[in-house]
Amino acid sequence: MYCVGVDLGGTNIKAGVVSLDGRIIESSIIRTRRDKKYTVVVDDIAKQILRLLSSVGISMDEVDHIGIGVPGVVYNARGVVVRAVNVNFSDVPMRDEFKKYFDVPLYIENDANCAALAESKFGVAKDYNNSIMITLGTGIGGGIIINREIYRGVNCAAGELGHMSIVAKGRTCSCGRRGCWEMYASATALKNLAIKTVSRNKQSKIYDIVNGDIKRVESRAVFAAAKNGDVVAIKVLGEYMSYLSLGIVNLINIFQPDVVVIGGGISNAGEYFLKKVCEAVEKSNEMGQDLEKRTIIKLARLGNDAGILGAAFLEKGV
Amino acid sequence: MYCVGVDLGGTNIKAGVVSLDGRIIESSIIRTRRDKKYTVVVDDIAKQILRLLSSVGISMDEVDHIGIGVPGVVYNARGVVVRAVNVNFSDVPMRDEFKKYFDVPLYIENDANCAALAESKFGVAKDYNNSIMITLGTGIGGGIIINREIYRGVNCAAGELGHMSIVAKGRTCSCGRRGCWEMYASATALKNLAIKTVSRNKQSKIYDIVNGDIKRVESRAVFAAAKNGDVVAIKVLGEYMSYLSLGIVNLINIFQPDVVVIGGGISNAGEYFLKKVCEAVEKSNEMGQDLEKRTIIKLARLGNDAGILGAAFLEKGV
Repeated sequence: MYCVGVDLGGTNIKAGVVSLDGRIIESSIIRTRRDKKYTVVVDDIAKQILRLLSSVGISMDEVDHIGIGVPGVVYNARGVVVRAVNVNFSDVPMRDEFKKYFDVPLYIENDANCAALAESKFGVAKDYNNSIMITLGTGIGGGIIINREIYRGVNCAAGELGHMSIVAKGRTCSCGRRGCWEMYASATALKNLAIKTVSRNKQSKIYDIVNGDIKRVESRAVFAAAKNGDVVAIKVLGEYMSYLSLGIVNLINIFQPDVVVIGGGISNAGEYFLKKVCEAVEKSNEMGQDLEKRTIIKLARLGNDAGILGAAFLEKGV
Repeated sequence: MYCVGVDLGGTNIKAGVVSLDGRIIESSIIRTRRDKKYTVVVDDIAKQILRLLSSVGISMDEVDHIGIGVPGVVYNARGVVVRAVNVNFSDVPMRDEFKKYFDVPLYIENDANCAALAESKFGVAKDYNNSIMITLGTGIGGGIIINREIYRGVNCAAGELGHMSIVAKGRTCSCGRRGCWEMYASATALKNLAIKTVSRNKQSKIYDIVNGDIKRVESRAVFAAAKNGDVVAIKVLGEYMSYLSLGIVNLINIFQPDVVVIGGGISNAGEYFLKKVCEAVEKSNEMGQDLEKRTIIKLARLGNDAGILGAAFLEKGV
């Protein structure tokens, strides 16, 4: 038997046929037609799955279930997507729609939860019961794994870690609150901070890296310049790390998880990035100093596969 | 059979004999001799328990287990109190010490966790699986109940909700961090804010309530004056509520618990207080507006009994 995992994103849809031991047999990517009605998107996904199965010679009889990760709030018990702004879904009865194509169980889940589950089952958190995954991207996605299962809360909307406010009366977030963590510690926040700082400090190596085109500044350039000793980049990273670590220490004080897993584009900066995060967390986690066991911080391992793998291994949900 | 619950505090030790259906048969209070060695404190508790049992005519053979709530970090698996500043405990092998007196299982747990467990088993959270309890006192205590059990984290130190920073670069907390929630939303924080504000606004009714003795200002006077339409008190409460609700909305975004239970002295202000909290939370919880099920906020019901009851119903722990 096999399972199918689908990672529905605002730009692309990734789907994969997965063995029961967590190996992706084959996967494919198509564009998300987010300007179309949900029935069209579901039709696209269904055809993508059928093409995949056909190409590896696996019949629907051999598929135990299908799981789908969606970038939004999902009532997985009813199979309904409450809202997913990036794909223009609002109150979409996704499971019912899929039933028109497939006669196997269909599980739907928030995509950040899928990624957290994947790292917990197959990635860097697989030796631990309790893990928190944060994904640093446009915003900050969050997934909470307790006793090796996704923690969903009363309405399946738990884990909005990016919308923990860390600056009372701070920057206004798209969610309507002020001072949300993601306004200060997402990849977007780092990029904005770097652009603002470099435009006032054109002697910075960051300026050279982007050939003077300040709009092209991204986290990658900041890390590259900082590694080369650029003082402006080091200052930008220092400020960014103070906010990133503040939120992580909050999560440690709240959950004391076995492990905090960091994913998303920024984490591609690798060991250099991880070292900076650990240093900043250590500095401000004074309450934890005398504790025997302490939360470990790790970089996500599964990258783009996390969405497919997590979706493929969703359980029945609440 | 019966169980015994003990609530060890910095000022008093409360102990109770409890029936297996959660009725406190009899309880007593003694002073905590916090200036003495832990062996003396344990001896005091042991004698208190024996007197209690004797007074209700119950023998040790009829006691299934003893549970103790301690104001600090506890490794309940080993029965060791890592630290409890208010009773001067540091690395105290409490279970071993109690074995010198009793031959029944002894469970030790953080006191805020005990209170949360009690409200979950017998109080306002008893119809729900997931609840968060916050206790507004000198600081803010926190207890996390997931699937009707205490969530402890990797080191039994989870649930330090008062040490979630909500003001980056804000007030310095005793824990070493800056901007901790309890620096802005504990009973102490409300008192300090009121004293500061009233000393500049002596026309306030709060000033009259304490007969001009500003040091005597406490939350009770603020609520009394606010109910009477005092603009200074209303302003003080408004600012306090903005911080209290900020932290609560953070916890909702993170956990989406069935219920947030608020305990501690301030919650004695009752329905008026609860209404203000709910209004403030509603105003800033825009993400939750379209969700079908939403977190309910309730005042704790068990008051001083929570510590005894929660301790009496501790399970084996991790």
